[in-house]
Amino acid sequence: MDQLPSYVTVSDQPSDVLGTLVEKWKPDHVAVLVDENTKRCCIPLLSIPEHTLVEIKSGEENKTLRTCESVWTALTAGKLTRKSLLINLGGGVIGDLGGFAASTFKRGIKFVNMPTTLLSQVDASIGGKLGVDFNDLKNHIGLFQDPDHVIVNPKFLETLDSREMKSGYGEVIKHTLISDRDQWSRLLKSSFEDQDWNSLVPKSIAIKNRVVTADPTENGLRKILNFGHTLGHAIESYFMKTPNKLLHGEAISIGMVLESHLSLQKEWLSQADFAQIRDFIVSNFTIPTALPTLEELINYLLQDKKNDSRGINFSLLNGIGNCEYDVNVSLAMVKKSLSAYQELI
Amino acid sequence: MDQLPSYVTVSDQPSDVLGTLVEKWKPDHVAVLVDENTKRCCIPLLSIPEHTLVEIKSGEENKTLRTCESVWTALTAGKLTRKSLLINLGGGVIGDLGGFAASTFKRGIKFVNMPTTLLSQVDASIGGKLGVDFNDLKNHIGLFQDPDHVIVNPKFLETLDSREMKSGYGEVIKHTLISDRDQWSRLLKSSFEDQDWNSLVPKSIAIKNRVVTADPTENGLRKILNFGHTLGHAIESYFMKTPNKLLHGEAISIGMVLESHLSLQKEWLSQADFAQIRDFIVSNFTIPTALPTLEELINYLLQDKKNDSRGINFSLLNGIGNCEYDVNVSLAMVKKSLSAYQELI
Repeated sequence: MDQLPSYVTVSDQPSDVLGTLVEKWKPDHVAVLVDENTKRCCIPLLSIPEHTLVEIKSGEENKTLRTCESVWTALTAGKLTRKSLLINLGGGVIGDLGGFAASTFKRGIKFVNMPTTLLSQVDASIGGKLGVDFNDLKNHIGLFQDPDHVIVNPKFLETLDSREMKSGYGEVIKHTLISDRDQWSRLLKSSFEDQDWNSLVPKSIAIKNRVVTADPTENGLRKILNFGHTLGHAIESYFMKTPNKLLHGEAISIGMVLESHLSLQKEWLSQADFAQIRDFIVSNFTIPTALPTLEELINYLLQDKKNDSRGINFSLLNGIGNCEYDVNVSLAMVKKSLSAYQELI
Repeated sequence: MDQLPSYVTVSDQPSDVLGTLVEKWKPDHVAVLVDENTKRCCIPLLSIPEHTLVEIKSGEENKTLRTCESVWTALTAGKLTRKSLLINLGGGVIGDLGGFAASTFKRGIKFVNMPTTLLSQVDASIGGKLGVDFNDLKNHIGLFQDPDHVIVNPKFLETLDSREMKSGYGEVIKHTLISDRDQWSRLLKSSFEDQDWNSLVPKSIAIKNRVVTADPTENGLRKILNFGHTLGHAIESYFMKTPNKLLHGEAISIGMVLESHLSLQKEWLSQADFAQIRDFIVSNFTIPTALPTLEELINYLLQDKKNDSRGINFSLLNGIGNCEYDVNVSLAMVKKSLSAYQELI
């Protein structure tokens, strides 16, 4: 049974949902945070009460404290008070950064996320992780706080190009691999083009909700959502400094292949299961043929928020549909998976 | 009956209290945030487990996002993880800024405040207001979160000069004026030099605790703690840009005189009560003889976090020992009190 969080509404009439919230909360000002894409593609699809429009540049490379400062400055100039409302209309960057900006502006104002990408609909808008990158470290500054509401409109997905859609598909695959072997078998049967998003999106939200409700501040179980993310984040950070930036879901997909290989080394995955995961990801994603070395990734890995005094911790599949967290892995094993990458793909 | 918050310990053996907490929490790293004063005067009085020392410059003018960034950078360099602990050893700036830095570092680590000034012991460390100034606006960026523990050591007060002590005295006076006419009569009987801090500090903490427990996020009652602060903050911000910076308690004391005059205008205070408040403050504080004009203060006033669509809201005494909040006051009345200031003092 799919259980959505109480603060999430899936609806193809998002303006009506928003109107009801505004009627209830009666904010004295409304501001809407957009990037150039959602300003062009999504604002025209919505009817929003009188508001101040705040625009930032799209892209993970702009999910910085400096951008957040520009939002705080715009909210100040727009004379927003503690009784005002910020609507974050966009993907993960807009939701994470806008949510952090709202939660800390005058010690916190209400905010609504309207995720416009598959990635943010199934992942970023659920679970209350807010924040910005800092000194090239991903989500290094932030906090845990649920949005006051999330309005998920499947129609926004029609505004996405295939690369953006696939980036979100990476998280759908992750949610499935860590929790549901039967659903994995069903995913395998359809090509990307034939997936039914109206069903997959609520199902993916429900999986994430189940995990984060059990462990909101990531002291334990929630870490399983980091499958693919330990190496994925490091790789994403590395490529962010090159001309060949990766989308989040692309980096995570590489991370899932590599971290499944760690499970193979630990004999937690059979060769057949590993090959099935690898083949599915390689056939669905355009991913780089060469990766940075361990030496080039190590500083990113050492800053991973899941680490403790034992060293680098992973969340690894122990069989498809099952994930374990706080798995301490030696650097030698990580190096082996990285070295094997070219033969893997 | 004085009731301290559960997370506050008043003790002249702060190292023991800290040791017990560290034993319980077992942080993997400890960092201590100090300024040049607490590094010199307070660190030698303490025994703290092995730690990374992080130093910032003292003074409200350094309670900025840039300083906070330097703390985040130092915590990163010190390899603190989400299981680490930050100890904020200092006054209000250290507690507010350090608390905000800790609450947002890797989405939040534990922090303990060890307030070293009278001001921070009776006020800043209680009630969970964390944050930094932004674009000259006081506490513009921040959040509400209680420290994991507060250790109040009355002996630290012996390290303060008289101007610093009096700055804290301003908040003691405020807590008394808004809540306890009998205590006000007792305060009047002793000169500043003869006050019994071992009794006044816990009493003042208890008053603040009673108010913030009833309304943690300042939707209502908590606003009474802002008596003297609407004009006080604006005046503090104004003077911060001049060579004649004011301490927080000094600015608030001026604010209390002016806002008591607003109560006089509204006939909420008798001429005798107003004169008693004014005389007590003027005799205890060295305050400027000339104030900025309304025009010079208006932009600060318009950004006050208590404002709503009606305009500028004050928390005003309605009789000594009683305070009302969300009192909308016309600019003409504010101007009148400001103009009267020189005759008042």
